Amino acid sequence: MATKQKTPPAQDHLPGTVTAGLIVIGNEILSGRTHDKNIAYIAEKLEEHGIQLAQVRIVGDNEHDIIEAVNALRGRYRYVFTTGGIGPTHDDITAPSIAKAFNRVMERNTEALKRLRAYYKVEDFNDARQRMADMPRDVHLIDNPVSAAPGFYLENVYVLAGVPAIMQAMLDSILPSLKAGASIKTKTIQTELKEGQMAATLAKIQSQHAAKVTIGSYPFFKEGQVGVSLVLRSTDEFALQKAYQDVKAMLDDIAAHSTSKAL
Amino acid sequence: MATKQKTPPAQDHLPGTVTAGLIVIGNEILSGRTHDKNIAYIAEKLEEHGIQLAQVRIVGDNEHDIIEAVNALRGRYRYVFTTGGIGPTHDDITAPSIAKAFNRVMERNTEALKRLRAYYKVEDFNDARQRMADMPRDVHLIDNPVSAAPGFYLENVYVLAGVPAIMQAMLDSILPSLKAGASIKTKTIQTELKEGQMAATLAKIQSQHAAKVTIGSYPFFKEGQVGVSLVLRSTDEFALQKAYQDVKAMLDDIAAHSTSKAL
Repeated sequence: MATKQKTPPAQDHLPGTVTAGLIVIGNEILSGRTHDKNIAYIAEKLEEHGIQLAQVRIVGDNEHDIIEAVNALRGRYRYVFTTGGIGPTHDDITAPSIAKAFNRVMERNTEALKRLRAYYKVEDFNDARQRMADMPRDVHLIDNPVSAAPGFYLENVYVLAGVPAIMQAMLDSILPSLKAGASIKTKTIQTELKEGQMAATLAKIQSQHAAKVTIGSYPFFKEGQVGVSLVLRSTDEFALQKAYQDVKAMLDDIAAHSTSKAL
Repeated sequence: MATKQKTPPAQDHLPGTVTAGLIVIGNEILSGRTHDKNIAYIAEKLEEHGIQLAQVRIVGDNEHDIIEAVNALRGRYRYVFTTGGIGPTHDDITAPSIAKAFNRVMERNTEALKRLRAYYKVEDFNDARQRMADMPRDVHLIDNPVSAAPGFYLENVYVLAGVPAIMQAMLDSILPSLKAGASIKTKTIQTELKEGQMAATLAKIQSQHAAKVTIGSYPFFKEGQVGVSLVLRSTDEFALQKAYQDVKAMLDDIAAHSTSKAL
């Protein structure tokens, strides 16, 4: 028997917010060798600023994949950030890949070269280090207070370092210049009830509040504790509070009528 | 002055290995609320099996993005895995999205229904829980030893749970049935030298060994320690050893001739 597909309303982003995509560049994440720390940091920082991360792609040090990701996301989201691949070694191919994505020539950026020259001793400023000043034509630099070599942005694409401390400094320095969306408020309720006990009522509540609130349901199993986190998000404090009361009432009602322990 | 773009050889994957894509589905990762633990786990497990993770996409609970990611990656890689979105709540939309990606109808899977019925008490087996048996037509089930609700696969796309314990059990159960590639050997060398000191020589070594070995260079800054990890990977033990000796000789040579402390 074929059943109808139940498709909830597309909730790409909350009303009033601004969207962003993120491209994490580097073989080390894909091999499992390095556990990425940048995604969650960037997601949280952006959200504080009213910018919702709508998609992340992790690609290797591979020109084709970088170009494809940049061109797919820069047309779709207000901002695109990339991390990684802007150092001096052979596997740092982000800048030329971005140039190709925008169909721009690469050139040695005069201001970037000046900053690098000021940072390195003359005898240390070799070809590889000078190449960190090679960027697509007509970009804006992003300060690197840690190790001088700047990031850059062109149009809506922001090219950041991959080393967390440098990436964070770069993100901090550009955030004030980005368009801030409406700030997102969150309410989280943890319950020992099971998803299956509340799914029907929760779907009704989500549907009643669909215009202004998203409700996510996240089961957790840890340290002997089993339960569900319900996370409500909205840019509208009043709508959030109303949805929260409905969820709270639902949980109280189910708890009063059930003793089930099934997941 | 426009400089030439230096593009290293595309090293999408090592010879003899099999490639995979991963799609992580769920708003909770994109909001920064949940730090993903599945990507590194899957990357490592696949690599042990000679399967290289070539791309990851993290998308929200958004039908359009799920369909696009599935269709982009399933044509490109030997295997595609998805995690998340197969529970009973309104935000679990992975199964119908996969059905649309494959242009298949959804149907209640008889075997999945049987397993769920055996797991739940009659009075607890409500509509929401029954819907966890709704899957695209003609899929193969993936066992869920934790909470019964199975994952499934069709063609080369494997649909797994998002909860780490369940995802891991599912992955373990399917791995033996996947085509194993040549196993990848790794050698890592940590050095206190700077990337910029060795970039030129390292690029030469990479280029000499390009057919069989990839060399990644990863700077780290932690707990007062600053340095670079050089990671060599190959399916060929002999080629790996030769490249390793070249890198080692390079490091010894640079260390002997330099006292620079610049990054």
